[in-house]
Amino acid sequence: MNKFWIKYPDLDEELELVKDIIKNNIKSSNKYFTQSIFPLVETGGKMLRPGFLLIAGKFGNYDKEKLHNLAAAIEMMHTATLIHDDIIDESKLRRGIETIQSKYGKEYAVYAGDFLFCQCFIMLSKYNYSMENLRDISNAISKICIGEIKQHNIRYSTKASLRNYLKIISGKTAALFAISLYTGAWESGCTKEISNLLGKIGYYIGMAFQIIDDLLDYKGDTVKLGKNAQNDLIKGYYTLPLIYAINEDKEGEIKNILENSRLKENDVKRIIELVNKYKGIENAERLADKYTEKAFINIEKLPNCRSKEILKDVTQRLLIRNY
Amino acid sequence: MNKFWIKYPDLDEELELVKDIIKNNIKSSNKYFTQSIFPLVETGGKMLRPGFLLIAGKFGNYDKEKLHNLAAAIEMMHTATLIHDDIIDESKLRRGIETIQSKYGKEYAVYAGDFLFCQCFIMLSKYNYSMENLRDISNAISKICIGEIKQHNIRYSTKASLRNYLKIISGKTAALFAISLYTGAWESGCTKEISNLLGKIGYYIGMAFQIIDDLLDYKGDTVKLGKNAQNDLIKGYYTLPLIYAINEDKEGEIKNILENSRLKENDVKRIIELVNKYKGIENAERLADKYTEKAFINIEKLPNCRSKEILKDVTQRLLIRNY
Repeated sequence: MNKFWIKYPDLDEELELVKDIIKNNIKSSNKYFTQSIFPLVETGGKMLRPGFLLIAGKFGNYDKEKLHNLAAAIEMMHTATLIHDDIIDESKLRRGIETIQSKYGKEYAVYAGDFLFCQCFIMLSKYNYSMENLRDISNAISKICIGEIKQHNIRYSTKASLRNYLKIISGKTAALFAISLYTGAWESGCTKEISNLLGKIGYYIGMAFQIIDDLLDYKGDTVKLGKNAQNDLIKGYYTLPLIYAINEDKEGEIKNILENSRLKENDVKRIIELVNKYKGIENAERLADKYTEKAFINIEKLPNCRSKEILKDVTQRLLIRNY
Repeated sequence: MNKFWIKYPDLDEELELVKDIIKNNIKSSNKYFTQSIFPLVETGGKMLRPGFLLIAGKFGNYDKEKLHNLAAAIEMMHTATLIHDDIIDESKLRRGIETIQSKYGKEYAVYAGDFLFCQCFIMLSKYNYSMENLRDISNAISKICIGEIKQHNIRYSTKASLRNYLKIISGKTAALFAISLYTGAWESGCTKEISNLLGKIGYYIGMAFQIIDDLLDYKGDTVKLGKNAQNDLIKGYYTLPLIYAINEDKEGEIKNILENSRLKENDVKRIIELVNKYKGIENAERLADKYTEKAFINIEKLPNCRSKEILKDVTQRLLIRNY
C-alpha cells in the first residue's frame, strides 16, 4: 500500500485489514471479477476515504468489525466510480497498472463497476445500524454521478464559471469525503453535533483536495505537467486555474485558442503560460487555502483526543504537502 | 404504457402512479438526467417487475404508498441495467426509441445508469422495513451483474452448456423476478413461508420468460427473426435453442459454421435451419413449459384470493402467449 498511513502504525494495520475484507468479499462473491478487480485493490491508492472513516470512528465507541466493514464498503464504492471513470476517460493506466476498461474492454468494466456498487450496498446493509445513514450514503453516491455528468456536460465550454466548478467538485469529490467522516462518527455512536461537524470537515478537506489535484496539473515539473494539463484540455475539462485565468484574460487570448483550434503542443504550452500570467494558479491556491483553513478551524472545535491530533496531522500532510 | 395490464384496471392505474413516482424522483433529484431518462420511463415496457411486486403485496397488508415506492425502485433498477446493457450491446433502439448511449454517448449512459442505481437505493432505504430485505435486493442485483458478465465471458464459445445457460439466465433475469414477488409479499407482512413461495414462483416465471424470449429469436416471422438471431449470433450470444441443436448435431455442422466464418446472411439462414432440424426450438419450448408448469404448481399452493387468480392469469398470458 501507499506509504501515506505509515506514520500511524495502528491505522496502517487496520487499513490492511480493510483491504483484506474487500478482497475476501470480491473473491467469495464471484470468481469472474476476482482477477480483474484484485490488482486495483492491491495497489490501493492512499485509502483516504476509509482512513478518514476510521479516524472519525475513534471519536466514538469504536466497533472494529463494523467500522472496518463500513470502511471497506466506502472504498469499494470509490473503486466502482474509478472503474467507470476510466471508461469515460478511456484511460490506459490507473495507479500504475492497466485499467480494467483497457485490459478487459468497456463492456466488462461497466459490469465490474456495477458489481462493486452492489457489493458495497450489501455490506452497508449488513453493517449499518440506521436506514437513514444508508440513505445518506446513497445520496452521496448519487451526487458523485451528478457531479460527473455536470462536468461532462460543460466540457469545452469556456463559459465554465467558478460557481459551476465548485458545484462539480463538491459532488464528485467532497461529498464522499464528507460522508466517510460522518458515517464513521455516527455509526460509532457520536452525537449528531459531532457527526455533522466531522462531515463538514470532510467536505472542506474534499474541496481543498480536489482543487489542489486540479492545480497541480498546471504546476511543477513541466514535462509531466504538460501531459496532464494537455489531457484535461483536450478532453474539454476546464478546471479552476484555467477558469480564473479566462476571467482575468480580458483580451480573450485563452478563449481564442480553446475555441478556434485543435490543441497542439504549442497551444497547450501557451495556455499554461497564460494561466500563469493571469494568476490562475495563485488564485486557485488561495481558494484551496481557504478550504484548508476552514477544515482546520472546524477540527479545532472537536473534543481533544488522539484522533483529533491524527486528523490534524493527516489533513496537514494531505493538503499542505505539494505546493 | 403497454396494454399488458389493461385487463386489471386497478393494477393498471397503480402502475401509472408507480411511473409518476419514478418520474418525480428523477426530476427532483437532477435536471441533467430528466430529459434523457424520461422517455425511457414514458415508453415503459410492460412494467412486469413492479406489477408482480404489487400483486404479491396484495397477499398481505397492502400499504399503497410503501408498495408503490418499492415497485418504483425495482423498475428503476431494471431500467438502470437496461441502460448499461445498451452500452454493451451498442444498441440503437430500446422500446422503439433511440437509446441513451446512442443519443447521449456511452459516457453519459454509464453515469445515467449509476445515478438510477443510487436513486433506487435511496428509495429502498426509505421504504424498506428491514435491512435484510435491502440486502436481498442488493444480492439480486449483484447476481444480474454476474449473470451478464458470465454471458459476456462465454461469448463465441460453442462449448456453452445447458448448465451455464441456466445459470446465466437465472442471474440476469430470474433473480429480479424472484425478488420482486418476494419483496412485495415480505414487506406487506406476509409470512416467511408465503414470501418464499412467491419468490420461488417469481424465479420459475423469470426462467420461463427468458427462455421464451430467447427462443422467439429463432421462431416465427422469418424477416424479423433473421435479424434477431443474427444479432445474437454475431455478438456471440449462443442461447438455448442453439445450445440444444449443437448438442444434437453430431456431425458438427453448426460448430463448423460458427467457428470458421464471419457470419454472412446465408450462414445465419443455415444455422436457423439446423436449429430447427435438430429440434433446438422444440426442446427449448419443452424446458420453458417445465418452468411454467412449476410456476403454476406453486401458485396453486398459495392461499385463495383475488391476487392468486390475477397471478395465474398474468402468468398464463405472459408465458403461454407467443408459441
